[in-house]
Amino acid sequence: MSPPPGTAALVIIGNEVLSAKVVDENGPWLLRELRELGVEVRRVETVPDEIPLIVEAVQRACRSAAHVFTSGGIGPTHDDVTIAALARAFERRVVTDARSLELLREKIEGKTARRMNAAQLRLAEVPEGAQLLWDAQSIFPVITLEQVVILPGVPALFKQGFLAVRERFRTSPIFSRAVFLASSESALAEHLDATVAAFPEVGIGSYPRFDDADHRVKVTFDGRAEAQVAQACEFFVARLPPGAVVRTA
Amino acid sequence: MSPPPGTAALVIIGNEVLSAKVVDENGPWLLRELRELGVEVRRVETVPDEIPLIVEAVQRACRSAAHVFTSGGIGPTHDDVTIAALARAFERRVVTDARSLELLREKIEGKTARRMNAAQLRLAEVPEGAQLLWDAQSIFPVITLEQVVILPGVPALFKQGFLAVRERFRTSPIFSRAVFLASSESALAEHLDATVAAFPEVGIGSYPRFDDADHRVKVTFDGRAEAQVAQACEFFVARLPPGAVVRTA
Repeated sequence: MSPPPGTAALVIIGNEVLSAKVVDENGPWLLRELRELGVEVRRVETVPDEIPLIVEAVQRACRSAAHVFTSGGIGPTHDDVTIAALARAFERRVVTDARSLELLREKIEGKTARRMNAAQLRLAEVPEGAQLLWDAQSIFPVITLEQVVILPGVPALFKQGFLAVRERFRTSPIFSRAVFLASSESALAEHLDATVAAFPEVGIGSYPRFDDADHRVKVTFDGRAEAQVAQACEFFVARLPPGAVVRTA
Repeated sequence: MSPPPGTAALVIIGNEVLSAKVVDENGPWLLRELRELGVEVRRVETVPDEIPLIVEAVQRACRSAAHVFTSGGIGPTHDDVTIAALARAFERRVVTDARSLELLREKIEGKTARRMNAAQLRLAEVPEGAQLLWDAQSIFPVITLEQVVILPGVPALFKQGFLAVRERFRTSPIFSRAVFLASSESALAEHLDATVAAFPEVGIGSYPRFDDADHRVKVTFDGRAEAQVAQACEFFVARLPPGAVVRTA
């Protein structure tokens, strides 16, 4: 069974994230971008720089979602294992991409009159059958293999790479409404249950707060059918006692 | 095969994170805390509020790591399914915890002279066999089931809950050294390979930058044996040409 269209999964590859040396900013940034494009993200998995774990995570992501994005592990050093892992995940060989090699030669040998070393040659390696998109400004190409877009982990390069392919993923928008409430979640639960039952196509979430905000609960309504989202929101609000709603958005 | 001691995995449960309505702050915060305690985090998985996906993620986390932490999905509404998912993951029934029920009764019925509703009764439900830690200040108990610590998603409550059990997880510290370099990763790769081969117990990472920072690459050395970490760092630095090192930390 192939994953539903308009869905995505993210695989964040990096010991530096798991060891709290850096806070991943690529995941949250891409979640916002994909939401804006109407894409529903089904999972985000952060894994170490270890080929077997990346292979499993990528295969799981491919079963979960139509589009998969990886962040990190691209480069010439020992801890850059994403290309090898992707090749293994799809049972491909790792091959040298002729165009990448040519561009790297121009850049490196042209400038320095030195031969490329083994590490530099690795930069031209891709899983066999991958598609490469070279952008005039970019240091790395955007590499795609089947449904997987392979992006570098350095945030500026990650963003540049995604923005070069962004419009490929746009789909029908997800509409959203929110109601901010003065009631507790316990008082709302029966009305939420009734709304969930009446509008099975609308995603409904309930988010309490325990601070001094102007509301105690935010309820959200999400879906691709704008009228249904609005109706679900109105159905819910109509069930509530007077004074329950602080504001809507 | 049981997972190695001193390891952890995180399962972040929440449609609101995947749909970019909020940026998860519990994951990054807990990664820093666990690092400080010497715990090695092996994976972080963010999944929707869907029982089958939570069950799979929790079971995978339990195979990967000695300690598992979940964030979110605790509460009285339809989208709070973590207790049900944990019960299913461990093949337990969902039962009402007598002490929780008593505390909720005091709090809710004592104040309002009303009977608890069905949603409020759900707040006392736990997987059978779970351990509960009630803290005087807290609204929710910290629930543990086998190796899993079940924490609420609201950041203030998540932090309060973890801090109540934090010291249980402290283990031998992870030592870290860093070298900041003026060279490119390609020029460093052979020296990194030699260091990785000579110090198999030390985790070595290489992180390039492409901005105007004072260095082009940061190389990190991590391990539980402080002397080995220092030796690996010195071994690497000694191989480099003069001027390569900008600074160390």
